[in-house]
Amino acid sequence: MSTKITNLAPSELAYVPFVSVDDMMKNVATVGVEEFIKGLAEYIEADFLRWESFDKKPRIPAHAPEGVIELMPTSDGKTFGFKYVNGHPGNTRDGLQTVTGFGVLSDLATGYPLLFTEMTILTALRTAATSALAAKYLAPKGSTTMAVIGNGAQSDFQCLGFKALVGITEIRAYDIDPEASLRLARNLAGSGLNVTICKTPEDAIEGADIITTVTADKKNATILTDNMVGPGVHINAVGGDCPGKTELHKDILLRSDIFVEFPEQTRIEGELQQLPEDHQVTELWQVYSGKAPGRTSERQITLFDSVGFAIEDFAALRFVHDLLPKTGHFIKLDLLADPDDPRDLYGMVLRSQSKGNGAAA
Amino acid sequence: MSTKITNLAPSELAYVPFVSVDDMMKNVATVGVEEFIKGLAEYIEADFLRWESFDKKPRIPAHAPEGVIELMPTSDGKTFGFKYVNGHPGNTRDGLQTVTGFGVLSDLATGYPLLFTEMTILTALRTAATSALAAKYLAPKGSTTMAVIGNGAQSDFQCLGFKALVGITEIRAYDIDPEASLRLARNLAGSGLNVTICKTPEDAIEGADIITTVTADKKNATILTDNMVGPGVHINAVGGDCPGKTELHKDILLRSDIFVEFPEQTRIEGELQQLPEDHQVTELWQVYSGKAPGRTSERQITLFDSVGFAIEDFAALRFVHDLLPKTGHFIKLDLLADPDDPRDLYGMVLRSQSKGNGAAA
Repeated sequence: MSTKITNLAPSELAYVPFVSVDDMMKNVATVGVEEFIKGLAEYIEADFLRWESFDKKPRIPAHAPEGVIELMPTSDGKTFGFKYVNGHPGNTRDGLQTVTGFGVLSDLATGYPLLFTEMTILTALRTAATSALAAKYLAPKGSTTMAVIGNGAQSDFQCLGFKALVGITEIRAYDIDPEASLRLARNLAGSGLNVTICKTPEDAIEGADIITTVTADKKNATILTDNMVGPGVHINAVGGDCPGKTELHKDILLRSDIFVEFPEQTRIEGELQQLPEDHQVTELWQVYSGKAPGRTSERQITLFDSVGFAIEDFAALRFVHDLLPKTGHFIKLDLLADPDDPRDLYGMVLRSQSKGNGAAA
Repeated sequence: MSTKITNLAPSELAYVPFVSVDDMMKNVATVGVEEFIKGLAEYIEADFLRWESFDKKPRIPAHAPEGVIELMPTSDGKTFGFKYVNGHPGNTRDGLQTVTGFGVLSDLATGYPLLFTEMTILTALRTAATSALAAKYLAPKGSTTMAVIGNGAQSDFQCLGFKALVGITEIRAYDIDPEASLRLARNLAGSGLNVTICKTPEDAIEGADIITTVTADKKNATILTDNMVGPGVHINAVGGDCPGKTELHKDILLRSDIFVEFPEQTRIEGELQQLPEDHQVTELWQVYSGKAPGRTSERQITLFDSVGFAIEDFAALRFVHDLLPKTGHFIKLDLLADPDDPRDLYGMVLRSQSKGNGAAA
């Protein structure tokens, strides 16, 4: 009888490693958040360096008045990954997250999933890693001070990413809600970052080498006006990331050299939606691979128009997949039917019934 | 201290009901496989009847030499669903399933998933339900005998579906591998179906009111030739379901009235890929809603060119979602980050660390 039960139990083939929110936090805690972001940045850079080997699809959106659900698939020909992500700005009113997500990494040769993971926390981490990686190439040499305008859920990760990859030590925080800035300062206490809470955006950008905008409103807003931005800064524009949602005045864009992930997507979703379709931009993968220059002068304003791209999620999924054997922070999910005889799916159901799983059919 | 731990535990908002393979088998066993297929057919018919309210997208494929992974999303404006499905004909050589899948149903108003479920078994069930539903409208009145050519993993479910919805009592089974037919006969013993194992396809279709073709080869094949198909039968063509994979001789198609799920997709994936792009077909939702006739004469050959469509998966996800409170066969998965303060994602990570989940960052 015990042999029979063993045969009926799912085999190793049936299991997919699953990283819950709790396990993701354990993974981050085990590695350390800054090291985790650094690791993500390495994987993202590696995947951007083989940009041309990726199948790049636009996101597949489903819209509602309240927000959007998107599937973001990509593949390098051997591995397939996708992220499910929603964006619902009104969710916080009901105690829900504005952005949540999960993702899957699969073996394209068999179609079998290799990893299923939460991606709410992971997306915040990979967004920070993407921004910090871009700034490593674009920000003024020796940058130490970053203004952070918008002190919501993403901002902590941005600060820690810029500390880890760029060497930022001073954060000048501004939010329309002073409580948000206090929250950020509280969370970063002990991180090695000095946080100065500022009363106005103008105050925040005073002396900043880098300006990060990461506000959450789902509308066109002008967080930065042209006269606020002096020469030589790097702007990390994270919050303008869907049609109708921008943060910067158009005149800033016209004075800046604009760097993007995937132009086809950024022109629809990023700050770039404010400019004509043929406005010249530089793709980050070309900067990383030396095909295009990054920062070329001290007075140049560089702008990373971040919208988030599927290859970053793919890299993040690869990073987590490779990390799991070291940390063990995952469970195995019985996601795939694995009959003894692959042609006998119904036989598996039948035998499950005779095992006493329920009334016979 | 215990209060603190309670606060750190995931809230109800963080959980998504998950139906594992084992739980899916328990759900099928509890309801009974025929009742389960009947229930699925009801949901599928209901969703086909509101066809125009759906956002119909083509599948999003990722191809490899060995097979394909597809995402199949759809939405009715209130609920969003998608299925992940692979098709890898060589997988059985390695003891893996040719087709596996899983799916997600979400609330479009919040973006939050409502259900995450295995769909390998569920897809076989919904495919059978879709075929049997079509046959209810298209097969000759009083059909009792069905030829089943191809006796692999899908065939059992097809037989049981046609018993439940159409009243089939006699199965004439043929497979190039006699072992497959024996397996089918063994599984259906005691189901109320009489199974006759046949030595040739010609033998199998003798006296059949309905011919189901459900072979698995990933190539153009001629399972049925024109002279084998007499007047008045209904053909349920299930196996020809991707580019380059067909089962019927073109001349059969030319003699048949062809019924399809979604023409744009069937012309690429179904038997229809053999015919010119403008060949007239009838959409099943129009038959179900009375906008188009189904079977109109006794001598007419009707043909359902099944390829599988996202709305069927959507209906299947809805059915399982509605079933779970009655059966209780699911677990809750900690998939969504749910911080006390939605803007404080990093605070949740921080507090998880101080709880002792790992080394401090």
